[in-house]
Amino acid sequence: MESQQERHIIEDGWVKRVRLTPPGLSDNTSDAERLVEGLKKELKTGEVTIDLLLLKKLPFLLREWDYRAGCVVLKDRGGWHVVGLFSLEQPDPPLGVAVDLGTSRVVIRLVSLLSGDVLGEDAFDNPQISIGPDILARVHYSEETTGLEKLNRLIIDGLNRNIENLGRSCGRNPDSIYLVSLAGNTTMTHLFMGLDPRWIIREPYIPVTNRPGMVRASDLGVAINPCGRIYIHPNIGSYFGGDLMAGILYSGMHTMEETAILVDVGTNAEVVLGNRNWLIACAGAAGPALEGGVTRMGMMAGPGVIDKVVIHPGEGTFELNTIGNATPKGICGSGLIDLAAHLFLSGMLDIRGKFDPGVCGARLKQAAGMPFLVIVPADQSATGQDLIVSQADIDSLIRSKAAMYTILETITASVGMLPRDLSTFYVAGTFGSYIDPASAISIGMLPDLSPGAFKVLGNSSLEGATQLLTRPGNLGEIDRIRDRITYLELNVNQAFMNRFSAAKFLPHTDPSLFPTVTAKRLG
Amino acid sequence: MESQQERHIIEDGWVKRVRLTPPGLSDNTSDAERLVEGLKKELKTGEVTIDLLLLKKLPFLLREWDYRAGCVVLKDRGGWHVVGLFSLEQPDPPLGVAVDLGTSRVVIRLVSLLSGDVLGEDAFDNPQISIGPDILARVHYSEETTGLEKLNRLIIDGLNRNIENLGRSCGRNPDSIYLVSLAGNTTMTHLFMGLDPRWIIREPYIPVTNRPGMVRASDLGVAINPCGRIYIHPNIGSYFGGDLMAGILYSGMHTMEETAILVDVGTNAEVVLGNRNWLIACAGAAGPALEGGVTRMGMMAGPGVIDKVVIHPGEGTFELNTIGNATPKGICGSGLIDLAAHLFLSGMLDIRGKFDPGVCGARLKQAAGMPFLVIVPADQSATGQDLIVSQADIDSLIRSKAAMYTILETITASVGMLPRDLSTFYVAGTFGSYIDPASAISIGMLPDLSPGAFKVLGNSSLEGATQLLTRPGNLGEIDRIRDRITYLELNVNQAFMNRFSAAKFLPHTDPSLFPTVTAKRLG
Repeated sequence: MESQQERHIIEDGWVKRVRLTPPGLSDNTSDAERLVEGLKKELKTGEVTIDLLLLKKLPFLLREWDYRAGCVVLKDRGGWHVVGLFSLEQPDPPLGVAVDLGTSRVVIRLVSLLSGDVLGEDAFDNPQISIGPDILARVHYSEETTGLEKLNRLIIDGLNRNIENLGRSCGRNPDSIYLVSLAGNTTMTHLFMGLDPRWIIREPYIPVTNRPGMVRASDLGVAINPCGRIYIHPNIGSYFGGDLMAGILYSGMHTMEETAILVDVGTNAEVVLGNRNWLIACAGAAGPALEGGVTRMGMMAGPGVIDKVVIHPGEGTFELNTIGNATPKGICGSGLIDLAAHLFLSGMLDIRGKFDPGVCGARLKQAAGMPFLVIVPADQSATGQDLIVSQADIDSLIRSKAAMYTILETITASVGMLPRDLSTFYVAGTFGSYIDPASAISIGMLPDLSPGAFKVLGNSSLEGATQLLTRPGNLGEIDRIRDRITYLELNVNQAFMNRFSAAKFLPHTDPSLFPTVTAKRLG
Repeated sequence: MESQQERHIIEDGWVKRVRLTPPGLSDNTSDAERLVEGLKKELKTGEVTIDLLLLKKLPFLLREWDYRAGCVVLKDRGGWHVVGLFSLEQPDPPLGVAVDLGTSRVVIRLVSLLSGDVLGEDAFDNPQISIGPDILARVHYSEETTGLEKLNRLIIDGLNRNIENLGRSCGRNPDSIYLVSLAGNTTMTHLFMGLDPRWIIREPYIPVTNRPGMVRASDLGVAINPCGRIYIHPNIGSYFGGDLMAGILYSGMHTMEETAILVDVGTNAEVVLGNRNWLIACAGAAGPALEGGVTRMGMMAGPGVIDKVVIHPGEGTFELNTIGNATPKGICGSGLIDLAAHLFLSGMLDIRGKFDPGVCGARLKQAAGMPFLVIVPADQSATGQDLIVSQADIDSLIRSKAAMYTILETITASVGMLPRDLSTFYVAGTFGSYIDPASAISIGMLPDLSPGAFKVLGNSSLEGATQLLTRPGNLGEIDRIRDRITYLELNVNQAFMNRFSAAKFLPHTDPSLFPTVTAKRLG
């Protein structure tokens, strides 16, 4: 009699079933080698070892289960390791956890290693925020006495607590978790492993490790099954992390015939261009404007935050959408892009990105010589004050969008392409999911591709991390992706500065690069 | 400037030196991958990982040493692991420890991993003796609550204490020790790893593991460098342990053209027969008589214990040698074999192994119907009582020697040979070192080979364990030996019983098998 799980098992997953011949006088192979031999046939491999802790229980379990067992078998560069054993009659499958370890936010997802089913998902603020909001602040803190230890403790404890809670809400225990697949930027993964990040932020920007691989959970203090492992997705360098690597895996661009681009839009623009034959990556500072951190009313997404803006030209009325339809209290990055796009299309911003007093009318005010535009008057805002966007805010956004476009131009130019030659444009990362491509095109941040060319991947880091939980083959795939990537160092030379200057117009000094925008504005 | 160690390094040992190109803006590979790439070239291998604890120190050390370092690189089935780093200027070499883990006695030897030099050696009683003197008593104790834990603790603590002392006497710290090579019988290695030994002693005699391989020292609680590893020599089954495997490695018989035999003589007779093409092993109970545990005056070697006996025929005088030339107080196994041999050669024992009253004379007495022979009269013994050997003692020895010879006959017969066809006979184990082959031949325990055929290996288990400390290639060699061995189950069937009955005479029912003995006795 076997349970339901028999029918739902993933082919070639991390879980294998063995039915061994019990030992006898003429076949006195040890329990461990009997299991290893059985698994070698399944795995078609020469090297299988059994974790010592499991070895202690092995003879009891095999006899209790009449030499039939389910095994969680994890792979690292050195071969396969049996890390978990369960009865074939047990109803609860062994579990894995995918983690997107962000600087601000951590997302975890509980997955059955047997069926691949998602059991639950949760998110929490990275507890290191209490030390510092960004990478730089945390790296500096890590250099203080016990600073690294404290940062490490914060994220490990936070993850343990949240994994336990998520497990409990699904009626499961952390002991059933055998594999954590964790993707994050290079600094976050270093802090997670307790590795010193000081050289990441200093020339020549050297991480301690590029490929952490499979690490024992117990070595990291991660409270899952004591034999469990943490797979930490590799990085390409200090500024191109495992989150991006997981994103590439999820996009599948590394398997495709046609050349595509994948962009994670944020304070840093991380970009990878390529196809099944080659991949080029680069990363550059795009400025904080894109994440809503600079304008006086800029903020992270949350209730009352303006995330969509439409301006009806002619009438000059603003149609605002806020998160949760609450009274507006500020604007997030995607809202700001929408706003700038519509200000430009309606003529309220000129091609230099300056407010046009004739079109803006009474909304345009001035303080201390700085023009600003009232978006929401005080009597309609949650703060009781005007929600405004200043000329300085717009200038900052334009620098950011110009930096982004320059990066896209530079990486495509490195293989003799133009940004508009791309037929597929993957937008990765949470922030990217909220951007309206049409608005981003209108301000010349993204190239003027057809709407169908943009593919929003959502939390591609989490999705890529999840894919490793169900497909051991992805381990090799990730290594192959990493080996194939050429990292393009962005040199801020004259050519780069020329491109950047040209991109500082709306949408660009060369309007022929953005034909649909020109048509919309004129029309 | 490099230190002396430069000149003394073993080729292809566990220690490698690397000189890496420091990183730069155009070469931003991480510290870990930089070291791994450097080592891959040295090791000619695809897989090198770095222990997490070491990874934490790596960036500091590489910068301090200008990217030049000595590395301790250990191999397991999964590839190579960097477990230690040291400055090329450091005078003290990284160390290894060879351990012969005996049921009664543990011998440890401290070795430089760099030069292979032996720094020191020490021995101590296996602290598990406080629980029980032999394997059976300890296995039974391990089945009690916390019994296994206690046995495990005893040996681990004892080893840690003695390693620390030995290190200190050589001016070194356990932290400099990166590799322990441990050889012991199957039960002792199980207790050492905390693995339940209960199935070893019960049909069908199944160990938990045959190939423990490289285990992390910290997982076993062994107090050497926290990244260090313990290599536990593999076993062939419950009754053919890693001590024998190490002995085969040391003898080199697995590389030779001619067929040789290796015998560890003790309570169990463990035998391996073979050459570079094939190896056959078997093990059988030879009885406790051989280790001096049964006769009323039998004891382990120590001051005052008779270890050599010569009887001058005709005169009937006994020439006794005692350990430390002390007043005699008992006899050990090798002394008993000498005694029996000379009693037989002098005619005091007949071919059935019975005392001949006519030859024994006044020395022969009787108590409760049991004849006994006075070896040392009360006034010359340390105990103040007659030291005697009874007919029952002799009978017991004869059963033991017959069992031993039968095992030799059975294993050689399995490949169509006779014991006397052997040209090389390796005697392994400490006890074997004390046996006089001529005496053992006289009683028909060992085959009648020329004296030059016997090669005493001494503590071959310790020697084999030592060889692993200097030659990583032995790891594969040991696996190859293990894979090539066919284990011969000794079935106590009619053929075996017939051989055993024939061997219960002195030297044998077929005196033509022992031509030199016949000549001596007649002469």
